Amino acid sequence: MRKLYHYWLCPFSRKTRVLLAEKKIAFEPIIIKPWEIPGSFYSLNPEGLPPVFIDDDGKNIANAYPICEYLEEVYFEPSFLGKMSAQRAETRRLVAWFDEKFYGEVTHNLVYEKVLRRKMGQGGPDSAIIRTGNANIHDHLEYVAWLSDRRNWLAGDDFSLADITAAAHFSCIDYLGDVPWDKHPAAKLWYARVKSRPSFREILADVVLGLAPSPHYRDLDF
Amino acid sequence: MRKLYHYWLCPFSRKTRVLLAEKKIAFEPIIIKPWEIPGSFYSLNPEGLPPVFIDDDGKNIANAYPICEYLEEVYFEPSFLGKMSAQRAETRRLVAWFDEKFYGEVTHNLVYEKVLRRKMGQGGPDSAIIRTGNANIHDHLEYVAWLSDRRNWLAGDDFSLADITAAAHFSCIDYLGDVPWDKHPAAKLWYARVKSRPSFREILADVVLGLAPSPHYRDLDF
Repeated sequence: MRKLYHYWLCPFSRKTRVLLAEKKIAFEPIIIKPWEIPGSFYSLNPEGLPPVFIDDDGKNIANAYPICEYLEEVYFEPSFLGKMSAQRAETRRLVAWFDEKFYGEVTHNLVYEKVLRRKMGQGGPDSAIIRTGNANIHDHLEYVAWLSDRRNWLAGDDFSLADITAAAHFSCIDYLGDVPWDKHPAAKLWYARVKSRPSFREILADVVLGLAPSPHYRDLDF
Repeated sequence: MRKLYHYWLCPFSRKTRVLLAEKKIAFEPIIIKPWEIPGSFYSLNPEGLPPVFIDDDGKNIANAYPICEYLEEVYFEPSFLGKMSAQRAETRRLVAWFDEKFYGEVTHNLVYEKVLRRKMGQGGPDSAIIRTGNANIHDHLEYVAWLSDRRNWLAGDDFSLADITAAAHFSCIDYLGDVPWDKHPAAKLWYARVKSRPSFREILADVVLGLAPSPHYRDLDF
């Protein structure tokens, strides 16, 4: 049985969960809490972080970037990068936008400060950092709206790893109730379409121990 | 003529320059200074950062991750990811190690604080952040030594994008004179082998305006 070591509010774990679901690849999910990494886990990923995917032949793939590229190479139909090289480059540009820029400007500021910092014994949340994360999210919602206005999905005609990656990040922030959807109706429409996909069901069913999701987190009509 | 928009001390630009050189793909280099991004550049990369690669058919690829994957797909011989899926996953794991972990713990702390912060009008360097960068680099040098002890190159038998990525980051820090090579002789041997490759010549010839490289930066026998 394939396995995925993941953590609920880790956007990199979430994107691999959704990509696996889109490709209809069944797996056993195993929770890895970033503040309680078992020593044995370092042999699966020397960085000591989820996600790690174990394929049914025992292949051990660590980190979301190698996992997603591996799934696209080995389980190539359907493809979520696209067929043509220009399309694949555009999809990957947006994947990097959310995994690097959005993560640094929003996800890390909010998820780390509000949830992980205390668990990891690094003290209480820093309200200035949380304010920065809350301020930064608007530009990204505008960018999603701008793209949605010009394209069917973020990277072009088809639902892609760009949508999966963006939604993985937004969904972590939405769990905390910190996405100002009402101020960005076009971005909200895009997210509603992602939410309604069967691949997103498990994400919406997540319950982080000791932290209830925001009231609208699960609603498809929010 | 192919073009690469890059900045000298940007590790992401450097890795694309070395990968292009390893694949013997000629290009016209164009300098983009992160503190003087021309407005027109945003149409090439909405994130407003180098690197951006323009292929000879006009295809516009932004961000190092899409560029490297594009070059591997379109100019696939020789491959610097490897042939088999497990090897490709291991190469990409180490690429992510240096582009995410090393960048966050070392490169950004040193290059941004020592060179870019003032240029970008963000005030003077923060000595606490520089100290953190200087402290963090030791673990990474030990990891390079550990890998070099067990493998011919970082990701396995062959020189790969993992070596290119790691060397791109180390070379930026080495330009500043901040790699404590003498304390990590096995890592130094690995870097000396990378430095001696023809693909690295242009990197070693770099002169950042107003900032001379460390005395040993160019020496193959340092």
